[in-house]
Amino acid sequence: MSEQQSRGFLLKQRAFLKLYLLDIIDKQKGYGSQMLDDLRKEMKEYGYNPTHSEIYKTLHELYKEGIVSREKKIKGEPGVDFQEIVIYRMTDKGKEEMKLYKKQMKVELERCVGLLNKALHDHYK
Amino acid sequence: MSEQQSRGFLLKQRAFLKLYLLDIIDKQKGYGSQMLDDLRKEMKEYGYNPTHSEIYKTLHELYKEGIVSREKKIKGEPGVDFQEIVIYRMTDKGKEEMKLYKKQMKVELERCVGLLNKALHDHYK
Repeated sequence: MSEQQSRGFLLKQRAFLKLYLLDIIDKQKGYGSQMLDDLRKEMKEYGYNPTHSEIYKTLHELYKEGIVSREKKIKGEPGVDFQEIVIYRMTDKGKEEMKLYKKQMKVELERCVGLLNKALHDHYK
Repeated sequence: MSEQQSRGFLLKQRAFLKLYLLDIIDKQKGYGSQMLDDLRKEMKEYGYNPTHSEIYKTLHELYKEGIVSREKKIKGEPGVDFQEIVIYRMTDKGKEEMKLYKKQMKVELERCVGLLNKALHDHYK
């Protein structure tokens, strides 16, 4: 998953979302729309509102890379509040790669914080 | 210049570069290629290598917005090391708008540091 990281300025939105989605999926906490709601609530105070489309593209990438599997399920009572949902689960490959990805992302997040703090230091101190 | 700021995830590269370029131009320290060299040296330890094209696009935006003026000059001895360079200077409009831009960018930089620190906190502590 290393090509997901930025080689230049700041890390890409999808690399950031993967970190959160992998964690949510690893804890078996949900299906797509629920993840979106949870993430939006969490990120709100930081002025970041991840879109439906960005979350689903990220989940699709994880699926294509074999990091997660998906399973369609029916939620609710047929004919009453019937809803088809997709459950995501970490694959064995995903569990292995997640460790490396988390290590790489720590370095990348710290690099970005360093770059932004440099700008704050250079212009406001 | 507020539309240059990110409304979503992290701030855009060009908003970041503007902050540095405005400062360099305000101190009357240079022409394009010299700014590029200086910025690259400064950013190197943060793994960020701004491209020639990104710097010039940013300078061009500042020019189009009336924030900076440009003047072509000849550097060196004709026929020996002749080189045409472009000197950038802050306009009066630019001096006014820079104050507001710097204030907005401080808020934006701090927001981004907050978001990245949240990710570090959520996944590594």
